[in-house]
Amino acid sequence: MDQLRRDPVVGRWVIVFTDKPRLPKDFEAEPEEKREGPCPFCYGHETMTPPEIQAHREGATRANSPGWSTRVVPNKFPALRIEGNLDRQGLGIFDMSNGVGAHEVIIETPDHSKSLADLLDHEAEKVIWAYRDRSVDLHGDKRFRYIMIFKNHGYTAGASLAHSHSQLIALPMVPKNVKEELSGANRYYEYRERCIFCDMITQEKEESKRLICENSRFLAFSPFASRFPFETWILPKEHHSDFSFIRTEDVVELARILKEVLLRMKCVLRDPPYNFIVHTAPIEQKEREDYHWHIEIMPKLMRVAGFEWGSGFYINPTPPEIAAQYLREAKI
Amino acid sequence: MDQLRRDPVVGRWVIVFTDKPRLPKDFEAEPEEKREGPCPFCYGHETMTPPEIQAHREGATRANSPGWSTRVVPNKFPALRIEGNLDRQGLGIFDMSNGVGAHEVIIETPDHSKSLADLLDHEAEKVIWAYRDRSVDLHGDKRFRYIMIFKNHGYTAGASLAHSHSQLIALPMVPKNVKEELSGANRYYEYRERCIFCDMITQEKEESKRLICENSRFLAFSPFASRFPFETWILPKEHHSDFSFIRTEDVVELARILKEVLLRMKCVLRDPPYNFIVHTAPIEQKEREDYHWHIEIMPKLMRVAGFEWGSGFYINPTPPEIAAQYLREAKI
Repeated sequence: MDQLRRDPVVGRWVIVFTDKPRLPKDFEAEPEEKREGPCPFCYGHETMTPPEIQAHREGATRANSPGWSTRVVPNKFPALRIEGNLDRQGLGIFDMSNGVGAHEVIIETPDHSKSLADLLDHEAEKVIWAYRDRSVDLHGDKRFRYIMIFKNHGYTAGASLAHSHSQLIALPMVPKNVKEELSGANRYYEYRERCIFCDMITQEKEESKRLICENSRFLAFSPFASRFPFETWILPKEHHSDFSFIRTEDVVELARILKEVLLRMKCVLRDPPYNFIVHTAPIEQKEREDYHWHIEIMPKLMRVAGFEWGSGFYINPTPPEIAAQYLREAKI
Repeated sequence: MDQLRRDPVVGRWVIVFTDKPRLPKDFEAEPEEKREGPCPFCYGHETMTPPEIQAHREGATRANSPGWSTRVVPNKFPALRIEGNLDRQGLGIFDMSNGVGAHEVIIETPDHSKSLADLLDHEAEKVIWAYRDRSVDLHGDKRFRYIMIFKNHGYTAGASLAHSHSQLIALPMVPKNVKEELSGANRYYEYRERCIFCDMITQEKEESKRLICENSRFLAFSPFASRFPFETWILPKEHHSDFSFIRTEDVVELARILKEVLLRMKCVLRDPPYNFIVHTAPIEQKEREDYHWHIEIMPKLMRVAGFEWGSGFYINPTPPEIAAQYLREAKI
């Protein structure tokens, strides 16, 4: 019989098909994308984006010209704007505010044909450094309470340009799902006096059947209550609540394991569309004992239907134990 | 400048593009579906589904034969199974249970070419009666705590068959999003001693700019913090917390307004894919003062990306005031 599994942090239930699991071959490959016109993220097209906020440049090249290896620019179609002060107001039972925030794009490589999984170690490290540097910079802006770093890869996952990039949004409030995660983790901490994610690492290492790979500083596994087939989480083994405090040695190892996980997915699932999100503590917090930053990677292999939207209840046809085995055994 | 709006019930924030709103013409039409083989929901194919649970039949026709106008069958590929007792257990920090539940399909019409929007009033009423009758029946099963009724229309919205149908899932636990809605509504009730949805009806009628249509017993509007372009809610004007207690006169008017809203969407958005979900109180509750059942309809006009998944924070390029105007002025 199939199983119902509960995420221990936020209390989300997932129906996991254990009887007739769906295997990698059972998912449709993403349709070929058709995009036309010059790519604004390629060398020589720097003026097609707003002026760069920062870039990693090896030699003495000018801003907004070729010669960069990663490049951060404001989103040309921002969901939020950096100018102005936050103005919150009530309208009867409703609340609103103006759209103050930051919305940036991290162009991960000048090579149009490469995805994050294909980068060399030192190239992927620069991407992580860009995440970290922009986080630290925006931490200084008193209007913001949360910084969300995420990536959409592939058309189905919401990427509007094929050239490999990530995004960062700085928000004037802590988003709902983040609040829930924090309060779930805090409830556990209040009861057990331990971090739930640290305990998860211990249990996953003991049970081992959901492990995908690890290195000296990070662990990658398929979470027990995976919402999606081949969902994968990457956690730092040492307890840290805020991604923006990441240290040099961790940047190196994070770049390696992130690349490795994405390469395993690419290999097993034929370059699937995916989203990943860096889950980290809100800005106003110093290191917290009860929260543990991590990355959640969600391949988009299935359409999400009405049931999931309405209930926060998911149906996952691929048990994480099977997903982990495929990813672990991938020939990369 | 764009706006940030907060849903007053669950505290979800939405970025609403008020500067350059996206209009109906700006959304891509859904690609044509290609489906082959005989349809299991058409007359004469009744044996292709599991045996019917109930059907509305005008004349003296046999079960599982033609002659029905609505037909309820178990889902052939159920997410949950009706047999067995609930067996919950802990595994270290994790919780699981066996997959006990019910998963039924409501076939809304024998006519393969008609959608719910196209049905005659008395045909649509039978669909609502089927929702209600199955709810009441499953209410009697002590293993279940929640009954979710929903519909996926169109391939992009997750419909696996084109023939118009809805689904019902009976769950042994209250899903997370439902719990949140209940507790948000309860917080408001504790503070104001009024139902937040009743207050929403009052405010929407006063402001009137988000209204779509109404009849003697129901109101349809674009919610203030719409997550999706053209999202629409239908609320009974009278306070009731549980859909399954719906009365005859309300069934008639609900069928009419639901059809009307779907027809307006079909007309304005060129038969968009959509999901709708009946939001209702959990089974163990009698009528509650603090909760108000309703239907949330979400057209699927855009891909949902990583940001939304990770944060519970949405970006909606079409302000509900503009969506409501288009839907209100639709020539149906």
